[in-house]
Amino acid sequence: MAEMVSNKQVILKDFVSGFPKETDMYVTTSSIELKVPQGSNGVLLKNLYLSCDPYMRPRMTKGEGSYIESFKPGLPIVGNGVAKVLDSENPEFKKGDLVWGMTGWEEYSLVTAPRLFKIQHTDVPLSYYTGILGMPGMTAYAGFFEVCSPKQGEYVFGSAASGAVGQLVGQFAKSVGCYVVGSAGSKDKVDLLKNKFGFDEAFNYKEEPDLDAALKRYFPEGINIYFENVGGKMLDAVLLNMRIQGRIALCGMISQYNNDKPEGVHNLTCLISKRIRMEGFLVPDYFHLYPKFLEMMIPRIKEGKIVYVEDKAEGLESAPAALVGLFSGRNVGKQVVEVATE
Amino acid sequence: MAEMVSNKQVILKDFVSGFPKETDMYVTTSSIELKVPQGSNGVLLKNLYLSCDPYMRPRMTKGEGSYIESFKPGLPIVGNGVAKVLDSENPEFKKGDLVWGMTGWEEYSLVTAPRLFKIQHTDVPLSYYTGILGMPGMTAYAGFFEVCSPKQGEYVFGSAASGAVGQLVGQFAKSVGCYVVGSAGSKDKVDLLKNKFGFDEAFNYKEEPDLDAALKRYFPEGINIYFENVGGKMLDAVLLNMRIQGRIALCGMISQYNNDKPEGVHNLTCLISKRIRMEGFLVPDYFHLYPKFLEMMIPRIKEGKIVYVEDKAEGLESAPAALVGLFSGRNVGKQVVEVATE
Repeated sequence: MAEMVSNKQVILKDFVSGFPKETDMYVTTSSIELKVPQGSNGVLLKNLYLSCDPYMRPRMTKGEGSYIESFKPGLPIVGNGVAKVLDSENPEFKKGDLVWGMTGWEEYSLVTAPRLFKIQHTDVPLSYYTGILGMPGMTAYAGFFEVCSPKQGEYVFGSAASGAVGQLVGQFAKSVGCYVVGSAGSKDKVDLLKNKFGFDEAFNYKEEPDLDAALKRYFPEGINIYFENVGGKMLDAVLLNMRIQGRIALCGMISQYNNDKPEGVHNLTCLISKRIRMEGFLVPDYFHLYPKFLEMMIPRIKEGKIVYVEDKAEGLESAPAALVGLFSGRNVGKQVVEVATE
Repeated sequence: MAEMVSNKQVILKDFVSGFPKETDMYVTTSSIELKVPQGSNGVLLKNLYLSCDPYMRPRMTKGEGSYIESFKPGLPIVGNGVAKVLDSENPEFKKGDLVWGMTGWEEYSLVTAPRLFKIQHTDVPLSYYTGILGMPGMTAYAGFFEVCSPKQGEYVFGSAASGAVGQLVGQFAKSVGCYVVGSAGSKDKVDLLKNKFGFDEAFNYKEEPDLDAALKRYFPEGINIYFENVGGKMLDAVLLNMRIQGRIALCGMISQYNNDKPEGVHNLTCLISKRIRMEGFLVPDYFHLYPKFLEMMIPRIKEGKIVYVEDKAEGLESAPAALVGLFSGRNVGKQVVEVATE
């Protein structure tokens, strides 16, 4: 009989409507055996870092038509994380491996059908694998380079630009010689975009009563590429300001996730008159590019050519507030929760 | 001094808001010299057939952000037509040539910067060059084959399916082994789709209180390709029924052209969850394919493998009613106006 230990967990209380609240989750303590059942193909993980991502909001709603399963009330939240393998019955992983991928919001997780990547490069902070080197990083990479087909000198706009994905999209765009403007929801974030991430310009959308006018100010010649993270009114304003044969990569629509019925978007005829391609994408379709992505990213991160800002919450108890904070824009940079150090 | 003749014309009275009415236009008679000014590069056309197309509605509105110029109140309506060259100072055209392209809604037009195609094949009805062999035909061809990237066995839906473009999209889709359903606005049109154009199924959208339910009935496994001609509520319903990695070609949004503010489309998050590409296009970008298109079409039309239905109005006086009728769906098949026979 293996060791039983206590296991702190963040549980979803019930399905959520409207803005999620901290009280939609609770922290409890159960116990877990630090051993994988023989022949189960599973792994036993010690969770180190947990990722708070906007796509998790739709999972808190009773699932209809979503591309991923809903969370299950009464069970731990599920999300991306960085973890250490404590035990394995899976031939791909062994005790001591560091991994990132889907895990539970708890101290220890038994994962029976692992969707995990092994972490090879440990000379960068491990928490980076919840962000710049993990799912959000790959999202920025696939969305910008594969979906947007950028060309040197093009005008690029990104919304939610200081977030985990947006900050990287802006840096990628600069790296291929584009002009980049980002929008975010506070002065601090705008400063970050301009002074840390090297955006050419940035603005606080909350201080712009007329988004169309704001975009016309920053893009007098229009937008070639829009990297969409928010949806709703911003998308409508962007449509009016796109250039002919522009591209819109639909990564997310965080402004809509808490609405019972999403806002209507009115200016879609612009897609015709300007021959625009608007394309939704999901990062798992691009995971075959992950090795190529890492090869590009690791040296650039080490040389300081790509920078990264994360907002780290300490301890599993802080996880519900950290997740909820995403939807009011409380976080500055990528929101991660540190559960334990290695 | 060349011959002066009287020239009946259809004039736009003033810019239009809401549904266009016959009284937004009037028929008058002026006179014209049947000679092109020397050195002008122009051609003098005798108009034979004039085309009524949905895209003409936005041209009746004072132009803001439209991809083509507004019509000018006090001057003749401008549109696609078939004409005979009576005089030419343009090296590409000579007297006696039959042409199709942009001309005026009048008996004779002096076109100073001709955007015209020479008609080589006269063993099909000349009026076809306003439809199946002209701009609408090329629109169906480019939109379906170039934008939709169809594959055998895919599920295709087209709206406004009995119109000039829609009837051809359906036949193209069948020709590559797709399953095709069309929507239209009357029983006659639905019968035409099923019995004449070979659609697998068709329905009258006006008799469907719940478009989402209608689409689920006709596409229990979802839609791979949507050829969009209408916009608004139909697009919203289609978004709910698209399959993963589907494609939406945005050709037009006729349901929106008479609205001051277009309806909101609410289900755009489906584009993300289902990784859908939605792309607007304009046929002039594809005119380099016209020779290839004709090569395919002419024999198929002669062999009866592609069929075509047009709704022919007689005489320039009937043109305002014919154009207005497009927006209430009065026409059955491609709406054309016969001004003169050769």
